[in-house]
Amino acid sequence: MPTIDILLPGFGLDTDQGYPAFCGVFLVRGPDAAGQPRNILVDAAHVGRRPFLWTALADHGLSADDIDTVVLTHAHWDHVQNIDLFPGATLVVHPDERRYAHTPHANDWATPAWTGLLLEQLPVREVGDGEEIIPGVEVLGLPGHSPGSIGLVVHTEAGRATITGDALHFAYVATTGRNPLVFWDADQAARSIGRILDVSDVIYPGHDRPFRLTADGGIDYLAPFALTVTGAGPDTPGLRFADSSARPSWVMPGIQEQRALYEKNADDSARRISRVPRVVRPAAAPRAAGPGSG
Amino acid sequence: MPTIDILLPGFGLDTDQGYPAFCGVFLVRGPDAAGQPRNILVDAAHVGRRPFLWTALADHGLSADDIDTVVLTHAHWDHVQNIDLFPGATLVVHPDERRYAHTPHANDWATPAWTGLLLEQLPVREVGDGEEIIPGVEVLGLPGHSPGSIGLVVHTEAGRATITGDALHFAYVATTGRNPLVFWDADQAARSIGRILDVSDVIYPGHDRPFRLTADGGIDYLAPFALTVTGAGPDTPGLRFADSSARPSWVMPGIQEQRALYEKNADDSARRISRVPRVVRPAAAPRAAGPGSG
Repeated sequence: MPTIDILLPGFGLDTDQGYPAFCGVFLVRGPDAAGQPRNILVDAAHVGRRPFLWTALADHGLSADDIDTVVLTHAHWDHVQNIDLFPGATLVVHPDERRYAHTPHANDWATPAWTGLLLEQLPVREVGDGEEIIPGVEVLGLPGHSPGSIGLVVHTEAGRATITGDALHFAYVATTGRNPLVFWDADQAARSIGRILDVSDVIYPGHDRPFRLTADGGIDYLAPFALTVTGAGPDTPGLRFADSSARPSWVMPGIQEQRALYEKNADDSARRISRVPRVVRPAAAPRAAGPGSG
Repeated sequence: MPTIDILLPGFGLDTDQGYPAFCGVFLVRGPDAAGQPRNILVDAAHVGRRPFLWTALADHGLSADDIDTVVLTHAHWDHVQNIDLFPGATLVVHPDERRYAHTPHANDWATPAWTGLLLEQLPVREVGDGEEIIPGVEVLGLPGHSPGSIGLVVHTEAGRATITGDALHFAYVATTGRNPLVFWDADQAARSIGRILDVSDVIYPGHDRPFRLTADGGIDYLAPFALTVTGAGPDTPGLRFADSSARPSWVMPGIQEQRALYEKNADDSARRISRVPRVVRPAAAPRAAGPGSG
């Protein structure tokens, strides 16, 4: 059966000066339909975690070249920026997310205008709800947080485990049923949370630790919290800690225009996709060493 | 005389799971040679500070359209990512930094392979040591941390104030004389620190508060530290704080190849620069409303 390892844990840490934005990065491994072992990376984090991603891969006996597939739960900045480390991989993304990334809304601060240039650096496979990546690993359509958010349902020995991306940022969202940060459609986002709860025994959120819901609706975390901060501490004058139990909700201003703009921009997105130069290339394939070659 | 405002303060906060990487973002204002007022942004921060940058501009009575010039101290990820907010501005960068960003070293985790695609979204003005941006605001060449790191010397009422970028990350670097994070040339980086100390009354570092050196070589900060963290606090099990007083130095593996690779890649960089599609465009100029127009 396929397995899930946490390469980089997700954290819900925020500040009043900027977002550290540490999303979960996962390694899904299992045989494909032909029985060949596959190494699937789910989300890639932002550049500030790049050295940590290298180390995490090495800790799992892998180099970037061993990753054959990179699945993006969505195209927000903190999930996509390290995809250029995997020039030999196929990028798996929902078509709505790909197209939108080429003409994002001006108020969508998590999708800079140059996001499409980044996405097209890898060969893209577009996938929709229900598609299989390898046996036991299926795409779950989870729109709302962004136009083409997806999850992966992985049939593990521990049950059906869903990697949700930011369709479900934090464990507490499983109890409120509302996405705290909506860039596309709040009602769709709420339905997507319901879908995750329906199909999952274990949930791997976008910015939190994996958990199960208990019989009485409580949160049972499956991994401890572990983070070391340098540069400031409890004794640093001016450093404060605020309660985040009531994290405020945010819906992007202009969200009601999103769908019409997306349709209006369809041709522009297609044209942009066709024009992106590929600056990231796989290393030259090793020369086949045939019999007698020296 | 020109002035410097801090739009976003720089912080030296790090973690063992990733870098928040909050650099200083500055607003330099003053009249140009023709006496016209100019709004110059120095560094743009990464996407995780984008909403905070919008707010900081508004707090200074500005919108993104009011910025006419964006100066990059260098092209590392945490300094460049929000430049697409300023499609009406000219991007000021050192030519070595621009070219290198199109063919960065594979070990240079702070300069992803797609950095050049991002830089070319604005019209570029290449500048070198000694060039004037506006009267009283001059470029200071500070290579070493990166190939084309630059600072800005601003002749303010408080004396010569130097915005250093990561040629000088933290105030303590003024006392050690060594750059803690070198991607290009450690000796050049040390000489650049010396240059900053020679020309500056006040120093605005890349990831710290502005300061003066006292007569006995101490650090006199000119702004308080202020940061509020949500999502974890001193009582969170698993959250630790480590002493950063002896921040370890890091020199990029492969640094000795940098210069030769840069020369070898010159043609490739030039070709790449010429092929980047511009997906960021200034808003259409408002139609001139002539006499009698409705």
